[in-house]
Amino acid sequence: MTETQAATKERPMSTGGDPQGFCLWLTGLSGAGKSTLAELLVGELQHRDLKVELLDGDIVRTNLSKGLGFSKEDRDTNILRIGFVAHLLQRNGVGVVVSAISPYKDVRNQCRAMMGEDFIEIYVNAPLDVCESRDVKGLYAKARAGELKGFTGIDDPYEPPDNPELELRTDALSPTECLAKVLGLLEERGYLR
Amino acid sequence: MTETQAATKERPMSTGGDPQGFCLWLTGLSGAGKSTLAELLVGELQHRDLKVELLDGDIVRTNLSKGLGFSKEDRDTNILRIGFVAHLLQRNGVGVVVSAISPYKDVRNQCRAMMGEDFIEIYVNAPLDVCESRDVKGLYAKARAGELKGFTGIDDPYEPPDNPELELRTDALSPTECLAKVLGLLEERGYLR
Repeated sequence: MTETQAATKERPMSTGGDPQGFCLWLTGLSGAGKSTLAELLVGELQHRDLKVELLDGDIVRTNLSKGLGFSKEDRDTNILRIGFVAHLLQRNGVGVVVSAISPYKDVRNQCRAMMGEDFIEIYVNAPLDVCESRDVKGLYAKARAGELKGFTGIDDPYEPPDNPELELRTDALSPTECLAKVLGLLEERGYLR
Repeated sequence: MTETQAATKERPMSTGGDPQGFCLWLTGLSGAGKSTLAELLVGELQHRDLKVELLDGDIVRTNLSKGLGFSKEDRDTNILRIGFVAHLLQRNGVGVVVSAISPYKDVRNQCRAMMGEDFIEIYVNAPLDVCESRDVKGLYAKARAGELKGFTGIDDPYEPPDNPELELRTDALSPTECLAKVLGLLEERGYLR
């Protein structure tokens, strides 16, 4: 993204006072804190009477991508489906929160291309050893033991965003500090009144 | 559906004057006229400044269900995905038009269960010989020649709805007559001002 694209813009509300839709795309390693932040965001945005939908990578796999595995091709298909649905919602005035590892840069950029400047990429970043030490779901242990193949960060790559709209170091910031930063960005960009 | 459920209701607009979302689910044989009616509906609803999205069975197969075939299980998965996405949109105030053969009653009823009384099932009905004589896409000829297996109406069943909110005989009514009937129903139910 160029600096011009990244520049803060006053965003007019659409006709009839409907809020403008947006997509907060939370990308990062397993255990980086995406789900925690996503839940805080959804609660806060609902509290402000916005239309909000959470598209969580795991939940979406059940409803949209049953049968897909974790090969690069299947991961890309899963992410493009999330992007397709996020875009349908976003262009109808919904604030969409996507929480998905989404490890590959190229397919994240394809989602960005669908939604233009209403796509807000948030790199939820903590060092691998921090994520691994948290290991909320016990998945890193399984990956290290070779029971899970193609696990992002262990034996499958994570490609960080080059120019995310926001990078949050969750090893340094608390969840509520992260929340405040995202809300600040939404306010700057005119998505929140 | 019971008579009580089917009864016309005055539907209050949601907070802030937002229109209430709904899902017009067009089911019927290939060639019955679903796409024609869907396009007329989308144009007319957009003209009335409603938020509208068309979920066309064929388009959705590209974006949500690549890799799925036409077995009963795959068809059901495809329809449930359409229902999942339609519901996300409908509950955010969008008027969703689904155009999909959706031949199996049970899975259509699962979609109805997601959306409750905002699910409006429209049986787009023409006799098989009429659909076959239209054969817009040349699919019936292929199915009769055995080049297409599991084609609805030929070697795969179509289960008509028991109690659709509307049945349109497209061999007797013109597309604009069908359109008028759907708009009339939406008005009766308070979805159109």
